[in-house]
Amino acid sequence: MGDKGMKTREEIQQEILEILRGRKSPKIMRDELDEYHAGDLAAALDQITIEERERFYRLESDEDLAEVLEHCDEADKYLEEMSLHRAASVLAKMEPDVAVDLMKETDSVKKKEWLELMDAESRSRLQSLASFDEDLIASRMTTNFVWLYSNMTVREGMKSLVEQAEEHDNISVLYVLDPQGVFYGAINLKDLIIARRDTELSDIIMTQFPYVYADERIEDCIWIIRDYSEESIPVLSSDNHILGAITSQEIAEVVGDEMGEDYAKLAGLSAEEDLNEPLQQSVKKRLPWLILLLGLGMVVSTVVGLFEGVVARLTIVMAFQSLILDMAGNVGTQSLAVTIRALMDDQLTPKQKLKLILKEVNVGTLNGAVLGVLAFVGVGVYIAFFKGMPIHYGFAISGCIGISLVVAMLISSLVGTAVPIFFKHIHVDPAAASGPLITTITDLVGVVTYYGLAWLLLLEFMHL
Amino acid sequence: MGDKGMKTREEIQQEILEILRGRKSPKIMRDELDEYHAGDLAAALDQITIEERERFYRLESDEDLAEVLEHCDEADKYLEEMSLHRAASVLAKMEPDVAVDLMKETDSVKKKEWLELMDAESRSRLQSLASFDEDLIASRMTTNFVWLYSNMTVREGMKSLVEQAEEHDNISVLYVLDPQGVFYGAINLKDLIIARRDTELSDIIMTQFPYVYADERIEDCIWIIRDYSEESIPVLSSDNHILGAITSQEIAEVVGDEMGEDYAKLAGLSAEEDLNEPLQQSVKKRLPWLILLLGLGMVVSTVVGLFEGVVARLTIVMAFQSLILDMAGNVGTQSLAVTIRALMDDQLTPKQKLKLILKEVNVGTLNGAVLGVLAFVGVGVYIAFFKGMPIHYGFAISGCIGISLVVAMLISSLVGTAVPIFFKHIHVDPAAASGPLITTITDLVGVVTYYGLAWLLLLEFMHL
Repeated sequence: MGDKGMKTREEIQQEILEILRGRKSPKIMRDELDEYHAGDLAAALDQITIEERERFYRLESDEDLAEVLEHCDEADKYLEEMSLHRAASVLAKMEPDVAVDLMKETDSVKKKEWLELMDAESRSRLQSLASFDEDLIASRMTTNFVWLYSNMTVREGMKSLVEQAEEHDNISVLYVLDPQGVFYGAINLKDLIIARRDTELSDIIMTQFPYVYADERIEDCIWIIRDYSEESIPVLSSDNHILGAITSQEIAEVVGDEMGEDYAKLAGLSAEEDLNEPLQQSVKKRLPWLILLLGLGMVVSTVVGLFEGVVARLTIVMAFQSLILDMAGNVGTQSLAVTIRALMDDQLTPKQKLKLILKEVNVGTLNGAVLGVLAFVGVGVYIAFFKGMPIHYGFAISGCIGISLVVAMLISSLVGTAVPIFFKHIHVDPAAASGPLITTITDLVGVVTYYGLAWLLLLEFMHL
Repeated sequence: MGDKGMKTREEIQQEILEILRGRKSPKIMRDELDEYHAGDLAAALDQITIEERERFYRLESDEDLAEVLEHCDEADKYLEEMSLHRAASVLAKMEPDVAVDLMKETDSVKKKEWLELMDAESRSRLQSLASFDEDLIASRMTTNFVWLYSNMTVREGMKSLVEQAEEHDNISVLYVLDPQGVFYGAINLKDLIIARRDTELSDIIMTQFPYVYADERIEDCIWIIRDYSEESIPVLSSDNHILGAITSQEIAEVVGDEMGEDYAKLAGLSAEEDLNEPLQQSVKKRLPWLILLLGLGMVVSTVVGLFEGVVARLTIVMAFQSLILDMAGNVGTQSLAVTIRALMDDQLTPKQKLKLILKEVNVGTLNGAVLGVLAFVGVGVYIAFFKGMPIHYGFAISGCIGISLVVAMLISSLVGTAVPIFFKHIHVDPAAASGPLITTITDLVGVVTYYGLAWLLLLEFMHL
C-alpha cells in the first residue's frame, strides 16, 4: 500500500465528524477541513446537529460553502439555517443553475429577500435564469462556460481561456463566436492544448457542433442532445447568441428526471415524490387518481353485476374471477411498461409502432396459451379432486378459465400497447393517462369473456 | 442571423443523406462528410440502406468510423455488416468501454475472430476490461485517462498532458501518482491551466479525491460516487494502482440503467427490454413471472372459494369484489413505487425507514377514508335506487364496501412499504421480489375483509 494508507469513505466521514466536534482553534479546523472533498463534507453535514452545522458555516468561506452545498441533497434547509445575508452571499457564489433550483424550493418572501441582498450582477444572472419556464431547456442551463472569438490565434485563445477559467470552470468544450458575437462553433479543450501556439484557432473549430434554442421544450430536445454525448451544448437565443450551456451532467439529470417521472406516473403517482414531502401534499397528489380509479371500478362492478344470474346458478365460477382479472392486468402492465419505455426514448415511425403492437400481442398470446393450458389442467384437477366434483364438471369450468386467460391476455397486451401509442399521438402524456384506462379495459374484457363463456358453455350448452 | 444561417437538425440530416446518395467522387464526399458531427452522421446511418452504409464505411477512416459508431444505438448491427478485418480495426479505435459493451452483444465466435484480428495492445486492453464481472464497477471503466507524477512541476505536467492527450481525451481531471505508481490524488485541468508554469504540481493536487476499487459492486458504490459529481473517478486495484476511470457520463448511464431496471422489474419484466429483441426472448423473459403470478392467483382463488357460501346467499356482493381488490392493488403499487425509489437512491437509516412506513400508512388511510365515504354514498345510492332494493339493504352493503376499502388500503400501503424494505434488508432485490407478493397479500386482505365483513354484518347480524 506504500506509505500512504487509503481510507474508506466511512473513515473519511468519521475524521470529518471528529474535526467538527473537536476543540481546535478555528484556523486549524479550517485548514484541516480544507483537506477534504466537498462531497465528503456535504455528506457529513447530514449527520451533525444544527449547532455543529452553524459552527461549520462560520469556519468556511462563501466560496467553499457554496461548493459544499452544491453536493448536498438538503441544501435548501441549510441555507435557511444561515442568516439572510450569509445565505445570499453563498447563493451568489454557487453554480447559477443550482442556485436557481434551490431558490425554486424556497418560499417567495425569503427568495425575494435573498435576491435583494445580492450584488447586482449575481441577482440579474439568477433572475434571468429563473425567468425561463420549467418546461424549457433554458431553465436547466448554466452561465458557467468559456467563449473565444473565431479570428483568434491559438495563443490568444489560450490566454483568453486562462483569464476566464478563474470564474468559469466548464472548460472541456470552449464555444466560439464570430466577430459579431454569433455562435460559430466549438473547440475541444484537448485540441487547443495540443495545437501549435502560432496556428489559427479556425483550424480546430468544429463548425457543426450541436446546439439548442432557449425556447425548445425539454422533452422535445433532451433525447436528441443526449445522443451527441458532448460535455456541454450551447443554448442560443433566437438571434443565435449564446445564453448559456447545458452540461452533460445536467443532461443526465434531466433524462433521469423525465424517466423517473414517467415511471412514477405509471405507478399512479402524479409526480415523483420526495421522502421529505409533507403528508398532506402526498395525499393531495395521489387522491385525484384514486378517485378516478374508484369511478372506473364502479363501472366494472356494474358490468360484473350483469352476470349475477350466472353466479347465482353456479357460485363456484366466481372464485376464479380474481385470477382472470389479475393475470389480464399483469400482462397489460408489462406491455404498457415496454411501450412507455419505447415511446420515451425514440422517435418511432408508424411502421415501428405497428411492429411493437404486433410483437406485444404475439408475446401476450403465446404467454396466454402457456398459462391457459396450465390453468386448464391445474384448476380442473383442483375442482375435480379437492372439491370432490365430477371430472367433466371440473374440466368444463377450468376450460372456461383457460380460454378466458388466452383471450384476456391477448386483448390486454393489445390494449397495453395501443392505448399509450394513441395517447402519445394525440399529445396526451401516455404515462399518466394509460394506467387507469388500461386497468378498466382489461377488467371489463376479463369479466365479459369469463362470465360470458361460463354462461354460454356451462349453463346454456352443458346445462350444469 | 448574420451571414451564417443556422440549420435545424432535420436539415442537417437531409444534407447528409443527399451527400451519401449523391454521385460525387469519394474524396469530395469524404471532405463534405467531415464537416458533420459524429452524432449527426450516426443518426443518418439509421435511415439509409445497407448498400449506402457500406459506401459510408468505405469512405471513412477507422478512427472516424469508430467515433460515429460510438453514437449509434445499433453499432453491433453495423459492425457485423463490415468485413471481419474492418470491424476489428474499427473496434480497436473505439473507446475501450464502448467496444467491450458492443462485443458482449455479439456471439462468441465472431467476438473471438475480431479479437484475433486486432493488434496485440488493443486485444489485451479489451480482454482485461471484459474480464471483470458485469456486477463490478470495473466493468464500466475506460482506460481513457491521463496521469502525472506528484513530483513534477506544472511545466512538466503540462508537457506530459500534451503528449498523452493525443491518445486520451478525458482530460477534465488528471490523476496523480506518487513515484511508486500509487494513486496520490487528482488535479482539475482548470487549475493546471491557470497555475504558474514554474510552481510545483503538488500545490494544486487534491489529495482527498474520491476513488473506487475495481471489485466494488456497482449497486453498492454508484449512488455514492454520483454524489461527488466529479468529471471522472479513478478505479484502483487492491494495491492502489490506477486501472482505469469511470466518467461522469458512464456514471449517469449506470444510474439510469439501475433505475430503468428497477422500474421494469416493478412492472413485472425481469429486465429492461429492447424494441428489437426477438419475440422468443421476450416471451421467455416474462413467462416465469407470469407463471409465479398464476400460482399465487390460485392461492387467492382458493381463499375466495371459502366464501362461496356468502356469495350463494347474497349474490350482489360479488359484483363489488373487483372494486376492493383493484383499489387495494392500486394503493399498494403507489406505496411500492415510492419505497423502491427511496431505497434506490439513499442509504436510509432505520429511523427514516420507520418514518417512511408510517407516512405511507397515513397517506393510505387518509385516502382510504375519503374513498370509503365516496363508495358508501355512491354504492348505497346505486343499489337502493338503480337496483330497486330497500334503502337499509343498499347502505348495509355499501357500508361493508366502505369499511373494507379503508382497511384494505391501510394494510396495502403498509405491505407496499414494509415488504420492499424487508427484502432490501435480507439482500433480495426489492424491485423484483415485491410485486407478486404485494399483489397476493393485498388481494387476500381485500377478499377476507370484504367477504368476512359481509358474512358477519349482513348475514349473521342483519340476517339479510
